[in-house]
Amino acid sequence: MDFHEFTRKIKEDSFKMSSLSNDVRNNALQAIMESLLENSGRIAGANSEDLRLARERGLPGPIMSRLKFDEKKLKDTLSGIGDLVKLPDPLSRRLLERELDEGLTLCKVTCPIGVIGVIFESRPDALIQISSLCVKSGNCSVLKGGSEAANTNRILFDVIHAAGEAAGLPSGFASLVESRADIDELLKCHESVDLIIPRGSNSFVQYIMEKSKIPVMGHADGICHIYVDKAADPDKALAVIEDSKTQYAAVCNAVETLLVHKDMAPLLLPGLRERLGEKKVMLKENASDEDFRTEYLDYILNVKIVDSLESAVSHINKYGSHHTDCIITEDRETADEFMRSVDSAGVYQNCSTRFADGFRYGFGAEVGISTGKLHARGPVGLDGLVSYKYKLYGDGHIVADYADGKKTFNFKDK
Amino acid sequence: MDFHEFTRKIKEDSFKMSSLSNDVRNNALQAIMESLLENSGRIAGANSEDLRLARERGLPGPIMSRLKFDEKKLKDTLSGIGDLVKLPDPLSRRLLERELDEGLTLCKVTCPIGVIGVIFESRPDALIQISSLCVKSGNCSVLKGGSEAANTNRILFDVIHAAGEAAGLPSGFASLVESRADIDELLKCHESVDLIIPRGSNSFVQYIMEKSKIPVMGHADGICHIYVDKAADPDKALAVIEDSKTQYAAVCNAVETLLVHKDMAPLLLPGLRERLGEKKVMLKENASDEDFRTEYLDYILNVKIVDSLESAVSHINKYGSHHTDCIITEDRETADEFMRSVDSAGVYQNCSTRFADGFRYGFGAEVGISTGKLHARGPVGLDGLVSYKYKLYGDGHIVADYADGKKTFNFKDK
Repeated sequence: MDFHEFTRKIKEDSFKMSSLSNDVRNNALQAIMESLLENSGRIAGANSEDLRLARERGLPGPIMSRLKFDEKKLKDTLSGIGDLVKLPDPLSRRLLERELDEGLTLCKVTCPIGVIGVIFESRPDALIQISSLCVKSGNCSVLKGGSEAANTNRILFDVIHAAGEAAGLPSGFASLVESRADIDELLKCHESVDLIIPRGSNSFVQYIMEKSKIPVMGHADGICHIYVDKAADPDKALAVIEDSKTQYAAVCNAVETLLVHKDMAPLLLPGLRERLGEKKVMLKENASDEDFRTEYLDYILNVKIVDSLESAVSHINKYGSHHTDCIITEDRETADEFMRSVDSAGVYQNCSTRFADGFRYGFGAEVGISTGKLHARGPVGLDGLVSYKYKLYGDGHIVADYADGKKTFNFKDK
Repeated sequence: MDFHEFTRKIKEDSFKMSSLSNDVRNNALQAIMESLLENSGRIAGANSEDLRLARERGLPGPIMSRLKFDEKKLKDTLSGIGDLVKLPDPLSRRLLERELDEGLTLCKVTCPIGVIGVIFESRPDALIQISSLCVKSGNCSVLKGGSEAANTNRILFDVIHAAGEAAGLPSGFASLVESRADIDELLKCHESVDLIIPRGSNSFVQYIMEKSKIPVMGHADGICHIYVDKAADPDKALAVIEDSKTQYAAVCNAVETLLVHKDMAPLLLPGLRERLGEKKVMLKENASDEDFRTEYLDYILNVKIVDSLESAVSHINKYGSHHTDCIITEDRETADEFMRSVDSAGVYQNCSTRFADGFRYGFGAEVGISTGKLHARGPVGLDGLVSYKYKLYGDGHIVADYADGKKTFNFKDK
């Protein structure tokens, strides 16, 4: 396959996608939902095959559980598409309407980004969610899932593609690529692919960020912090720390380093050792520089005593990954100072870092979490999948008239 | 100078910048404005020196006129800062406020991007505009101006820096770098610099985009089109074409290719040849593929006859640079179809492509024009210089309660 030709055709279809009405996009989502439901038996069969192969290869338990895609998981995922259909159209929203002068009107209007390559991990529901978000936002998606889920992804994709095309979407609205070598080819197609969203391991995301001229949205690390202020409620602190570390340790929004104000340490640490000890979490109370830069994704937590809010903030901005960081305090002013100064996508007071997620933010679904500060930041839902363009309507207006002083601008926002 | 250390300090100051109130930022702008006015004599003197050196080096007329920065130009630029002070605070705007559940509230709030490197051409007013936009938006700027304007830029920077610092801005709010070698060093500092905005020649912008891991916002080419539809008013078409080509030919928003519907060609072309002939514009009626990809920045215009709106759109999406493209038509439906399908930052009906500019859009000023589709697109003013963060306020909320089904989310937007 010539990838430049392949993505060039998708690019052409992306222009067709951008002209479709919200009704056509919603009807297509509806049709996709129904077709996936009708094919639930075949999907379960393909998934059993992937699970059998995974068992043969001796893949670890957590991967097996993410890979499993039974009828219950399918129904949950489909109800997510139902929610997406109900959300307002993210396209053609007027962000600005301004008369520049009589008869000369500027409109800033949302539009799709175009062609988006998404590379995701072993969960097959990710394929359904990502392709649906792209349909709703008028983008063409190029999907590469985890190789462990190849059979499940293939049938999911075939069903989605056939249903979407029958409902009036251009053929290139979604494409599946299946090998790692294809990713390298995709990354070269900067003339046709507008955005790459990689999800997966740190090293993999780094690899993609370094390899491609295409803009990349996502995150490599999730080094999240909790700072327990001197004005903290220790019980709240313990509950939030336990949840942030142990509710699901292998994910980017789990906490990796705990900072404790020196006045709070005697009150907090005995209870902390006991409570996290019960959960088999190892506390590193003499953590090194290297430890502070490590995303453990495991039952390990760095603990550091700090002198002040400023030291805590400065530690977080130095060692953190700008993902999600939390302060435990009953003092709202201290919390606001923390939230202003910490340079992260999510800044929290008195709640678990595990809330950093598109579903929990009410976005319906997410294509990923961005730690960059341009375009979209934090969990990325529909809003992060649109761009905008400026439409200017005139009646023969020329710049010379304004440059010569014959006319002057007279800005009026509508 | 160790650039990593230099930019690391600026990064630290950027956290201070992000905590300053709108009043502090506006007062600093006011102080900068007054100090520039007080020093207008010294500024004019430094500019005379730059002009003398430029004459000695035999620099061409257009560069000389961009370099010239007399008291009238200074006053115009200062009135721009006055306008900027009056604009609403771009920071701490609530883009979303959502109760996720009782006592758990999510706020999406605008914040500065951080440290922005701007590399600009010979006009000294650019230094004042860019640094002011960055102060208003709470960003630290690292400025590199054209070497022809070195004396003018040095005094402008010294006055701005002293006045800003005295008014309470951190020292790193603005920095000047003066050599081309410094740019290469700056491009390596991706751990501290959040964004690079290059303005200048195509090859220079390409060089920067390829060289740096730091996100780049801007445009390399400005290959703008006008499509004259079969339903066009030929007189309007001629006036708009003449203005788009000749009002200022050496800029990115000048038109380079004219597409004419075959039914309109006999009505338009004789008048076009006469009118542009008077202006000494060379019409290329047998333009090659190469010509269609060339940004002339000169009195040359490609002319191509097309069969349909679709061919025009497809030519523009293939050869254009996604900057600004215009349709001349009296048919609003045709215009809307064109504006939906053309994948450019600016899509115009019946007006000159030369309107693509931050001042003319009423943004007060611009740091550049972006042809990318992520973050900011088109002329970039204050809105393009901010990011956002998610603030989540809780009272000991943990994810386990929601995962176990003890609690459910109950989204309520405020």
